[in-house]
Amino acid sequence: MLNPNLTTDRPTFVTHLECSLTGERYEADRLHGLSSAGRPLLVRYDLPAIKASLPKAMLEARPTDLWRWRELLPVRRTSDIVSLGEIETPLIPLTRSGGPNVLVKDEGRLPTGSFKARGLVMAVAMAKALGVTKIAMPTNGNAGAALAAYATRCGIETIVFCPDDTPEINVREIAVQGARVYRVNGLIDDCGAIVGRGAAQGLWFDFSTLKEPYRIEGKKTMGLELAAQFGWQLPQAIFYPTGGGTGLIGMWKAFDELEQLGWIGPERPRMYAVQASGCAPIVRAFDEGVEHAERWEDAATVAAGIRVPKAVGDFLILRAVRESGGKAMAVGDPAILQAVDDAAKKDGLLLCPEGGATLAAYREALRLGWIDEDESAVLFNCATGLKYPMPPANAKVDRHTEIDLAAL
Amino acid sequence: MLNPNLTTDRPTFVTHLECSLTGERYEADRLHGLSSAGRPLLVRYDLPAIKASLPKAMLEARPTDLWRWRELLPVRRTSDIVSLGEIETPLIPLTRSGGPNVLVKDEGRLPTGSFKARGLVMAVAMAKALGVTKIAMPTNGNAGAALAAYATRCGIETIVFCPDDTPEINVREIAVQGARVYRVNGLIDDCGAIVGRGAAQGLWFDFSTLKEPYRIEGKKTMGLELAAQFGWQLPQAIFYPTGGGTGLIGMWKAFDELEQLGWIGPERPRMYAVQASGCAPIVRAFDEGVEHAERWEDAATVAAGIRVPKAVGDFLILRAVRESGGKAMAVGDPAILQAVDDAAKKDGLLLCPEGGATLAAYREALRLGWIDEDESAVLFNCATGLKYPMPPANAKVDRHTEIDLAAL
Ligand SMILES: Cc1ncc(COP(=O)(O)O)c(C=O)c1O
Ligand SMILES: Cc1ncc(COP(=O)(O)O)c(C=O)c1O
Repeated sequence: MLNPNLTTDRPTFVTHLECSLTGERYEADRLHGLSSAGRPLLVRYDLPAIKASLPKAMLEARPTDLWRWRELLPVRRTSDIVSLGEIETPLIPLTRSGGPNVLVKDEGRLPTGSFKARGLVMAVAMAKALGVTKIAMPTNGNAGAALAAYATRCGIETIVFCPDDTPEINVREIAVQGARVYRVNGLIDDCGAIVGRGAAQGLWFDFSTLKEPYRIEGKKTMGLELAAQFGWQLPQAIFYPTGGGTGLIGMWKAFDELEQLGWIGPERPRMYAVQASGCAPIVRAFDEGVEHAERWEDAATVAAGIRVPKAVGDFLILRAVRESGGKAMAVGDPAILQAVDDAAKKDGLLLCPEGGATLAAYREALRLGWIDEDESAVLFNCATGLKYPMPPANAKVDRHTEIDLAAL
Repeated sequence: MLNPNLTTDRPTFVTHLECSLTGERYEADRLHGLSSAGRPLLVRYDLPAIKASLPKAMLEARPTDLWRWRELLPVRRTSDIVSLGEIETPLIPLTRSGGPNVLVKDEGRLPTGSFKARGLVMAVAMAKALGVTKIAMPTNGNAGAALAAYATRCGIETIVFCPDDTPEINVREIAVQGARVYRVNGLIDDCGAIVGRGAAQGLWFDFSTLKEPYRIEGKKTMGLELAAQFGWQLPQAIFYPTGGGTGLIGMWKAFDELEQLGWIGPERPRMYAVQASGCAPIVRAFDEGVEHAERWEDAATVAAGIRVPKAVGDFLILRAVRESGGKAMAVGDPAILQAVDDAAKKDGLLLCPEGGATLAAYREALRLGWIDEDESAVLFNCATGLKYPMPPANAKVDRHTEIDLAAL
């Protein structure tokens, strides 16, 4: 009963995996990390066969959750699906604080309150399918929570490492959902180095973003959903808070696959990769016109999710941004916090700081004439604002005294 | 473009309002509080006309969000709809910590992270339609956040009163979304008394639960959704964390309307009204066989949402529970916290304490033979677990030293 996307067997179409740098082929249905060139692997499908067997109308008749896209996803056996209710996230107009054509894709509605659920649900299902029993991962908070939830749900053991200033709420969420979690005196790439050492010793499987091939397949559903929600058009601009960049790379891949299916045309949104001024390696590389990004030293920003000094998929992010005619943009913490406050106070929508960064970037792009108010723009709010500190508010009244209510 | 439920004009069918105690009629499309008997008003529809104009297949073809039920809702003008993305909430199996036929309806995915969004989106839209400009409300936290968000979004001023031990995260969420919020040295009914005084002075409109007629119409969508999700059957049992009881009353009303439409049969789920041992006025009244519940003195429980010493709709809750063949049940705080921990550690699902209470009650009902493992049961998790304190977890490792990773 209930959701047929989770219970009905459906044909699958993965043909092989491919190195994103060299194009070298790798066999499907085997455990892989990075390619031999040390770069992310991309999953490839028999798209003509999908086109022949999945009419668009058939897809449209299914419930709208993430698993409606089964034919475009790597999980072969229905029994390997692990799910906590991956709903299609809503698009919410941000009229007053954004503009007449600004929509927020509210990813905070996903399991564990962030879009990390998309990537991790897929990676965990594939880990289950491939017999993995122990996983480790570095995280700025949200990814660890999503990993813990899904891995726990299917009985896989997990160890998570996070920077020592990770907010307590994230650390606790990871632990309560059954993972072992450690604070590390360093940033996410320092955590990643520890995970890498343990993986090299054969202690666990390394689930760092883009270091296994399936998180990107989960994240790509953001692009698939957008296309469906926009009636098989796409918005003119997408503002994406960019850390490891998996989501941006994934959406770009999704658009390509949809075009090959004939479901969308060749037009693409301009992709704006948004970073924080205190950690903007992709922006620096974009501005310098180079293909790879150097590590950003002394990274610091309130938007912890995009505090990623070095991204293994740097060249994929830069390539997508450039091909799309978009830009990599940095915004300062004061502008981020102002944007979060404005969206809440004017539109009633509580963004996370990373979501605030996209609103700040949108405003800056408008000011600089890079985008027009008439153009449709989607801002990604990648996590619920409830996971982040909010400004204090502490007015009191005493019920025993005569309160002048009119003066409140 | 986008969601036609929010943009397409549709016929509406409200005929009048009716006192839930005496049946006295009240005119639609006017501002109402309680009936002259001091009891909640219920909205009545021309159900035969709905039946004639809305084939079930037409409804099923619409996007699944709350506004798909437009014909069964009171908002007449599309332009009065205020929305933050009221998605249909997913049903998530709780196999290990619950049982093979236990599903959680995860209401934490709604705007502002709780099911209060359902009631408040409707009440605010109607307030907007009827020209209200200033609203006050008592809250245990979640309702105030939902009110603030929706009222801010359409420019209505709000004042919110909460018990002084309301968690800081809830108070801040209310304030950041544009409401003025006051802590009161007392419980929710003490807050309600202040709201009532101000309303009597004409300072604001009183939005206390069931004291205006439309929150119940929004909450009733939980019942409508359940019916659709179960393929126009219903589960055999529903466990609902009961404070004011608006949701339980609303679902009961929804089932009745659906039967009159011919979309479901006369079978009903057994309704289990779940309260905390430290605040169980409905359970006491149920056990005593009386129709109204006395105020519960010295109310105390970790599940703040159901810390409601006195409910204005007491007789409606008791009536629904009794007619359904269900029960009112109390569970202790230790059982609640254990249930929250189990669901997270065994099924990867972080419940709020009120949701934990329903799991604890389900287990107790199973133990007492009130329910069989073979029967389908839905537990309501009415808010995201992220809004509540979680147990600490503070393991550290030093990246500069040689860590024995195998020992972690
Ligand atoms: C809220 C939030 N936004 C954005 C990001 C960055 O995502 P990506 O790694 O896809 O660039 C993260 C990653 O942690 C995040 O948690
Ligand atoms: C999380 C949660 N559960 C349950 C309730 C009780 O809801 P009702 O008033 O419909 O009984 C509340 C109300 O505040 C709540 O916040």
